This record gives sequence, C-alpha cells and structure tokens, in this order.
Amino acid sequence: MRRYRLVVQYDGTEYCGFQVQPNDPSIQGVLESVLGVLSRQPVKVVGAGRTDSGVHAEGQVVHFDASLTIPIQRLPMALNSMLPRDVRVRYADIPDPDFHARYGALEKMYCYQIWQAPYADVFWRRYALWEKKRLDWNAFQEGAAQLKGTHDFAAFAAAGGSVKSTIRTLKELRVQHQGPLTKFFLTGDGFLYNMVRNITGTLLEIAQGRRPVQDVGPILASGERRLAGVTAPAHGLVLVRVVYPDLRSDLTEGE
Amino acid sequence: MRRYRLVVQYDGTEYCGFQVQPNDPSIQGVLESVLGVLSRQPVKVVGAGRTDSGVHAEGQVVHFDASLTIPIQRLPMALNSMLPRDVRVRYADIPDPDFHARYGALEKMYCYQIWQAPYADVFWRRYALWEKKRLDWNAFQEGAAQLKGTHDFAAFAAAGGSVKSTIRTLKELRVQHQGPLTKFFLTGDGFLYNMVRNITGTLLEIAQGRRPVQDVGPILASGERRLAGVTAPAHGLVLVRVVYPDLRSDLTEGE
Repeated sequence: MRRYRLVVQYDGTEYCGFQVQPNDPSIQGVLESVLGVLSRQPVKVVGAGRTDSGVHAEGQVVHFDASLTIPIQRLPMALNSMLPRDVRVRYADIPDPDFHARYGALEKMYCYQIWQAPYADVFWRRYALWEKKRLDWNAFQEGAAQLKGTHDFAAFAAAGGSVKSTIRTLKELRVQHQGPLTKFFLTGDGFLYNMVRNITGTLLEIAQGRRPVQDVGPILASGERRLAGVTAPAHGLVLVRVVYPDLRSDLTEGE
Repeated sequence: MRRYRLVVQYDGTEYCGFQVQPNDPSIQGVLESVLGVLSRQPVKVVGAGRTDSGVHAEGQVVHFDASLTIPIQRLPMALNSMLPRDVRVRYADIPDPDFHARYGALEKMYCYQIWQAPYADVFWRRYALWEKKRLDWNAFQEGAAQLKGTHDFAAFAAAGGSVKSTIRTLKELRVQHQGPLTKFFLTGDGFLYNMVRNITGTLLEIAQGRRPVQDVGPILASGERRLAGVTAPAHGLVLVRVVYPDLRSDLTEGE
C-alpha cells in the first residue's frame, strides 16, 4: 500500500458535490469507483476541499491509499479513460506517506465568476453567475479590501459548522475583468463552510447598490450570519488551486 | 403579419442541428415552438446558417413572419423566459419586409476552437477539439494562407450538396492563441456544407506533421473531396456572426 496524490479538474454541474452521498453522483464517488476497479479493492479518497453541489474545480487535490501496479506517470491517462468526461485527472504523484490533502494544505484559492450582460450567455451558464444590472465594481473592491487579513469570519460562515475556530486569514482578494466576465479571486489559509459564497453575495449586494459598503466592517465585527448578504449561487464558484509545501495544484508558475 | 429578425446564441451540444428533424430537438424547432405559443399560430423560422448537430452559435440570425402584440424591445426577454437555457435571443428588430436571413447575408464568420494540452479540459469539452500532441501552428497558418481569396472549394465540400457553384471567397483566415486555446477564424461570403470543418481537418493534419503544407494547393486545384483531410468534429465549431447591409450579428464594433 502506498499513498497517492492526484490533481483533479471537474465541472460540478451534474454532481451532488465532492463528498459521497447516498443515491447521488459525487466527485469522491466517481474517483473511488474507478480507483476501486483499477486496484481491485475498495479505495477511500480524501479531498482538500469538500466543494458543494454545482461548484467546480480547476485544481482539487485528493489523496488515497492503494497498491497499484500501473506506473505513476501513466496513472492520469488510465483514470481518465474510465472517468466521465466532466472529471479529469491532470497530475498524479506519490507524496510523503503522511501527506494529507485536507490537513496538509497551506493555502487555497477560489474564484467566483460573474457574467454581467443584458442577456445570459449560453457558454457561461454553468460556470458564472449571470447579473443583468450594471455593478459598481469600485464599491465591490472597496468592500473586499476590508476583508483582507486575519479576522473572525463567523458572520460569513454557514450556521451549523463544527469548526473549532472561525478565524481565518485572507491573503488576497482580487477582481479581474475580461469583457462581460469578472473573476473574483480569494486566496487564504482556509475557508469556512460557504464563506466564499457568503462574502461574494454580500459584496454583490453592495455592487448592486442595495447596501452601503460601510456595512462590511460592522458585519464582520458582529459575527452574525444574519447581518451578511445572501449566499451567492454555487455554479459561479471554482476551487482554483491548493498549495502544499511540495505542490501547487494549478501546476503553473504565477497567475 | 410582419417580418421579424432575431440574433440567437446557442450551445449546440444537445441539438440535432439548426434544422428541424423528426423526433430530435433542433434550434429551429425550439424557436418555432416558443414563437408559436407567443403568436398563437404556427411560425416558420428561417436561419442564416444551417449549423450541424453539436455546432454552436454566438450570432446566428433568423427571420420569421408573425403578428405579435409584444413591443419589439421586450421580445428577447419574453422569448428567453420560455426558451431552454442553452438557447438565448440576444437581439430582435423589424427589418425590411423582404429581408431574408439566408439569402441576404453578405458575409459570415465561423470560428473553430482547438484545446491543445496533455489532458482534455472539462470546461472546454463541449466547445473545443482536444488535441493532445503539439501542433505546428506555423504550418497551419501557411496552409490557411493558401486558401485565402476566391477559389473553387469543391475539394472541401461534403459530397451530395446541391449548390450551383462551389466557388466562394474567403476574405480572412486568422489564428488566435489564448494559452492552450486556439481560435481559427474564417470569414467569407459564404461556406459550402462542411467546408469549415473540412478545411480545419486538413490544416490540422498538416499541423500534426501527417502531411506536408505543399498539399494544400493541389487539393484545392483537384476539386476532389477524397484528397482533403478528415472532417474536424462538430463540437469545436461556432458560427460567430452574420453580416447584412444593416446588421452585424456580433453586435459589437470590430473584433
């Protein structure tokens, strides 16, 4: 038995999320299924981030233990030949035996994608939130800037979480425009459940002019979920990359 | 009764093509269906280009005759509220009564999209041809340049067409790289059936090093379909725009 590590890209549209759930297709489920066929015994897959239903990934990282006879460099192609077309393995290696995809992550980057145009775009309908009205991106940026740094993000966490601490550090919040498409990148040491979608939902209400940018500080300070904005829809969210001491899952240099 | 004109965007993945066919969903079919509901009588839709199954459109143009009570500026939103999410009406107007979407077109632009990377990309799997091997884009360009101008394109037309003339003018063939994605734009006064896919398939064989760029001239001169390369798959092809004396269906200035 050895520990393996994969970088996985997926279109989350057709899945109930990363984690296995009874009766619904999950990313973990399809990975465990093909790995089970390849290794001829049950395999348990652990992911860096448990993305929700409809959330996508460019660089999800998973680990599992198995004894495979296939050479590691041929593993991605072998798995891809068995996986559905909306899940692709982009990289495989053999990390330290105590590598853990979730607990070993130093940093994650998410991207929330917004398509701002009079009509929804068919090619982005699965990957970006369509926003018909004009948005005030300066206000959005100003609000985002107030979230940078180390804070108690309880106000932006879904209720019912079981985490010990709601303190996290957001290293960078960056807005990038490409025509009608806007990408909102958030980089941090970790994210609470629904944190990116709650932050984005709140900043979008500010960008829509439905609440003042001055709300951000008090919401953050209050720690009260009910003061923050709505949870932005899942389909605009992408887990871009996970960083470990020995791997950056976007497999490229720089952004 | 008045003549109406629409600009339509669609993801062709789930359709048998533009044209109505028995038992399969078509773009023409879904448009005729919602227009029939709106006008309370059967409507016949004529498109500028009869795109094949799996081919997409950014700016397809259609016309139809109907007597609608809804103001023209509200027509796109009304139709979009009834159409499936992979078909969007982007624009509507009332052209001259003798406007014809197909015969009135002065120029069309198609784009063939190629994703060149070691692994297929889940987000582009429906919209670009995945090419694993490195491609020689200089050879591709050199071959494309030989097709510019007015030629008899019979060698690149699917057999069985009923057109009177196979002479067409390609005004521009342009290759644009965006990381792993390459867009091959073809602008012309008209295109024979499968012409873009046959040209792209032939140029890809050259870019793969499977045949010399010197083949292009003789293939064109021969007029023989069997000498040209394979037909590139439908899912990489997009009808970008159609140009009329009074409308450019990409609705923007310049590329």
